[in-house]
Amino acid sequence: MHSVEHYQQEFIDYLKRYATVKEPHNLYEPIVYILGLGGKRLRPVLTLMAADIFGGSYKEAMNAALSVEVFHNFSLVHDDIMDDAPLRRGHTTVHEKWDVNTGILSGDAMLIMAYQLFEYYHAETFQALAKLFSVTALQVCEGQQYDVDFETRTDVTVEAYLKMIEYKTAVLVAAALKMGAIVAKASTADQEGIYDYGRNLGIAFQLQDDYLDAFGDPKTFGKQVGGDIIENKKTYLFIKALEFSNASDKAELAQLFSTNPEDVQAKIQKAKHYFVESGAAKATKAAIQKYTNKAFSVLETLDISNDKKELLKAFGNSLMNRTV
Amino acid sequence: MHSVEHYQQEFIDYLKRYATVKEPHNLYEPIVYILGLGGKRLRPVLTLMAADIFGGSYKEAMNAALSVEVFHNFSLVHDDIMDDAPLRRGHTTVHEKWDVNTGILSGDAMLIMAYQLFEYYHAETFQALAKLFSVTALQVCEGQQYDVDFETRTDVTVEAYLKMIEYKTAVLVAAALKMGAIVAKASTADQEGIYDYGRNLGIAFQLQDDYLDAFGDPKTFGKQVGGDIIENKKTYLFIKALEFSNASDKAELAQLFSTNPEDVQAKIQKAKHYFVESGAAKATKAAIQKYTNKAFSVLETLDISNDKKELLKAFGNSLMNRTV
Repeated sequence: MHSVEHYQQEFIDYLKRYATVKEPHNLYEPIVYILGLGGKRLRPVLTLMAADIFGGSYKEAMNAALSVEVFHNFSLVHDDIMDDAPLRRGHTTVHEKWDVNTGILSGDAMLIMAYQLFEYYHAETFQALAKLFSVTALQVCEGQQYDVDFETRTDVTVEAYLKMIEYKTAVLVAAALKMGAIVAKASTADQEGIYDYGRNLGIAFQLQDDYLDAFGDPKTFGKQVGGDIIENKKTYLFIKALEFSNASDKAELAQLFSTNPEDVQAKIQKAKHYFVESGAAKATKAAIQKYTNKAFSVLETLDISNDKKELLKAFGNSLMNRTV
Repeated sequence: MHSVEHYQQEFIDYLKRYATVKEPHNLYEPIVYILGLGGKRLRPVLTLMAADIFGGSYKEAMNAALSVEVFHNFSLVHDDIMDDAPLRRGHTTVHEKWDVNTGILSGDAMLIMAYQLFEYYHAETFQALAKLFSVTALQVCEGQQYDVDFETRTDVTVEAYLKMIEYKTAVLVAAALKMGAIVAKASTADQEGIYDYGRNLGIAFQLQDDYLDAFGDPKTFGKQVGGDIIENKKTYLFIKALEFSNASDKAELAQLFSTNPEDVQAKIQKAKHYFVESGAAKATKAAIQKYTNKAFSVLETLDISNDKKELLKAFGNSLMNRTV
């Protein structure tokens, strides 16, 4: 086993050798650009770590890890077009730097390239990886569609919301871990176990993102605090607040989330007041804890040493305590 | 062996059972829509035919054929966004009927679904099909990029143009045939042979498309005759006409293809005059013949009965004599 920093560095070195511009230049330059923008490389590190945890070698898992990262960046390029986002990781988005058509086509190429990275593996492993990849990638698309659909709906249930974040965010974290297990030829039970660990941790992570967006420390939270409130995003906090409120509060909260006032700070304070008073903030914290516990309890079932279980727990904790 | 019509009908029946709307509705409805718009289903028919030709069964090749068709329709959806096309096969394009974001996301899902269709096959066949699919799909993206790049270039060589149409059109025809051969477990030599047959026929087909766009019969040619001229498309005819012209004609032709006059008929007549007088029309016909002959001569090398060779030749001829 190695440190997270070691996996990160090894991955970044590997990525650099992979991401080189070839012809046609206008297709591959944006791909090299987006892959080079940085980020925590969380998902590929999980793949490498899982390979080592299940008795394989992280070096064998490098192409699977790269596939996960290429897919993740594909989804960023296409999502940024759909959201008309000007910035990604502090840099100009692909469709802004080039144009929408370039973003579409380079994204398409990345999705194909992600599959090609599995070709390094033998047929059985190739098929297991590609099958997992396909079902995951399709869920990510479905999650994105649910997210878009929810923007214009006022009747989103907690269950529907949880499914959306599971598909949009959690399944890729889960698949990243399972790919490492597949490469390491872990048992089916261990493959499913590590997937469930990742899925639950991914849901907890996204719920925490919802929570921190309202209640995070502006100094340590990476994004603008209150951003979801400003954009009228129906997060877990909002859905729970609606659920817990009486008819008049419900109407006022719904009204608040249909406006775009100049004074965003007043809107944020008002929303946070509802979130706290309704009990939604507390319920969100409880849900975060529930999914984190679920993730950790799955670890107990894995056929790995206690040291490794502690390591996965420590990783989960470091992820969940990022900016409280 | 069966008739082309039989393969078509069987394929359409299979497609209908496959293409059903599920949740999220807004993601899958456009997919069912575009897959149902019709078309000749040329590529999937080639996959089915090739499977029978190499001693397999077309029924075994159905999922591979469907994958080719789903991929082809994915590329239509994304290309139509890039070209801002209002119509496809006489119907509203996906991004017009819904919106650009829907076109992007539904297209992405189709690309993934195309890979999923290989999951029906055993690991070795799965890998062979997916590898061929990936390299082909990436070439289609590269071909599309070259096509976009050529719009703003005035120095496109015949070689570069041929590579563009090979990537954008011919390789998918070739891969469709080879997939049938893979499913039928044909020898590597036969797999490569049928691929080459398809590739050369695909190039001939696209060159013929260029030719018919200027010289086709408006009654039988599916598209508007002169469409490429109106849109200043640098087709094989145009590139050859430039190559064969003296400096002053070259300048006039380049000038003609940088204008968008009201009187399109005069422009078309003028362009056709250059195409004929320069010898470009004749050179294009010769190139069509050359690639058709290349395709047919590859047939001789295949380890199949003469009946089947004749069948492939007849198919090629029917394709090439479509609307002369």
